[in-house]
Amino acid sequence: MIVRTTADITGTERDVESEDGNWRSKRIVLANDKVGFSFHETTIQAGSVNNFHYANHIEAVWLVEGTGKLTDLETGEEYALAPGSMYLLDGHERHRVEPDTQMRMLCVFNPPVTGREVHDENGVYPLIVEESA
Amino acid sequence: MIVRTTADITGTERDVESEDGNWRSKRIVLANDKVGFSFHETTIQAGSVNNFHYANHIEAVWLVEGTGKLTDLETGEEYALAPGSMYLLDGHERHRVEPDTQMRMLCVFNPPVTGREVHDENGVYPLIVEESA
Repeated sequence: MIVRTTADITGTERDVESEDGNWRSKRIVLANDKVGFSFHETTIQAGSVNNFHYANHIEAVWLVEGTGKLTDLETGEEYALAPGSMYLLDGHERHRVEPDTQMRMLCVFNPPVTGREVHDENGVYPLIVEESA
Repeated sequence: MIVRTTADITGTERDVESEDGNWRSKRIVLANDKVGFSFHETTIQAGSVNNFHYANHIEAVWLVEGTGKLTDLETGEEYALAPGSMYLLDGHERHRVEPDTQMRMLCVFNPPVTGREVHDENGVYPLIVEESA
């Protein structure tokens, strides 16, 4: 059993801020925990416009706080987001997240993020496979 | 892309209450979504004592609301839980959860729960594999 807190990982290498300062991701479970998924708390700043694309990962996002808009950039369809909204990128869809108020969401990635990925110029996390010990 | 809300699934077969009324689990992502994990919001009543054991599943639990105590029944070790606490049952540990105030947690299961499991007499979820379409 592993027990951690969000406070424990704040300021460590599990706590990653975007270069533009628009989002911050605290990864409480990562690939090296070897459970087949990673589990993150992501906060996104009010008023920011964020284009994301996980070409190599499936992501589920469940909103805990905040409101805003999600756009499926493949179809143009828009969704209002509020606490209790969940979106599942089961088709690796390019998407845009625009918070009206700061959003806090819990996110699951499969395959798990290693923590060494950075968004490339297209907003894509590269696929990095954790070496077995 | 799939977009759902906690409200959408309330009262459906994705919304499961325990026989003793101590906990309720809203499964917003299940095995038939075919993403390799399931994702649940579980609420557990204040003052209840809950023994759990997932012999066939790994579970990560991140507490969003409430406080209480977690006991690792394999070792006897106790942990205080509060918003921001996460526990990862990477060794299928038998454990006890005792909320002081109602707990709300977001939970990830691997392999994904199908929604047809019930806790057996030992508090274990049996392993049910979703048939491919």
